[in-house]
Amino acid sequence: MSATTEDDDQALVVDVFARACPSRSLLADVTGRWGTLAVLALADGTARFGALRRRVDGVSEKMLSQTLQALERDGLVAREVVTSIPPHVEYTLTPLGQRIAERLRALVEVLEDSVPEVLAARAGHEGRAGAAVPARGRVGA
Amino acid sequence: MSATTEDDDQALVVDVFARACPSRSLLADVTGRWGTLAVLALADGTARFGALRRRVDGVSEKMLSQTLQALERDGLVAREVVTSIPPHVEYTLTPLGQRIAERLRALVEVLEDSVPEVLAARAGHEGRAGAAVPARGRVGA
Repeated sequence: MSATTEDDDQALVVDVFARACPSRSLLADVTGRWGTLAVLALADGTARFGALRRRVDGVSEKMLSQTLQALERDGLVAREVVTSIPPHVEYTLTPLGQRIAERLRALVEVLEDSVPEVLAARAGHEGRAGAAVPARGRVGA
Repeated sequence: MSATTEDDDQALVVDVFARACPSRSLLADVTGRWGTLAVLALADGTARFGALRRRVDGVSEKMLSQTLQALERDGLVAREVVTSIPPHVEYTLTPLGQRIAERLRALVEVLEDSVPEVLAARAGHEGRAGAAVPARGRVGA
């Protein structure tokens, strides 16, 4: 997980495992609490804030706003003020955002396909743990 | 982003956008604050807790422990107590964990490759925002 874009220049070594690498904060923005769902929602096309909020079930206005700001700052999302009456704001994935969205979609496809296996693992884990480790109730949390 | 494994059975519709879908909590475990890095570290092979902690630069003992517990509960990671002297614990990706690790690796490769573009976007964004929006200093945070 490291790539050097130029020899003998340590500043250009990119490694997500390194705490100070910018790819670490990019990973946090892209995955994070709501990043993945926001990017995937925008992969379906340009959307207004309200539509995104409805699509990403459970996100608060504040969290969605912060998530979009981080993605805009990273260059994954373009924000455009449309001067209609009343004016509104539209969000669109940039080409960079689209490339990342493809990989996120591939990840989520495997996760969705894994749900039966994961549910079986969780049930088995709670059975083995017995009363010593109470179920943490994270399903659907 | 939805898959139905059986017709006419709403309980089996898997959709990561739905708040109550188990794939949502799985996504949180796999990405989350440290999930991605823990899975990728284990993609290199079986490892002890201490080795994982050194590899995932910046993680605390408590957070790594919680992360591994969640991944074990989801069936991505197997935990084995090796009865050596002194005994120690080893962590290994399951086949399910390996499948997910492949997709995470593909995602992180694009993220690492995107760093120059993202840094340029961040610099431009701060330039445009000027004094109105202070830089949030998230690089390396």
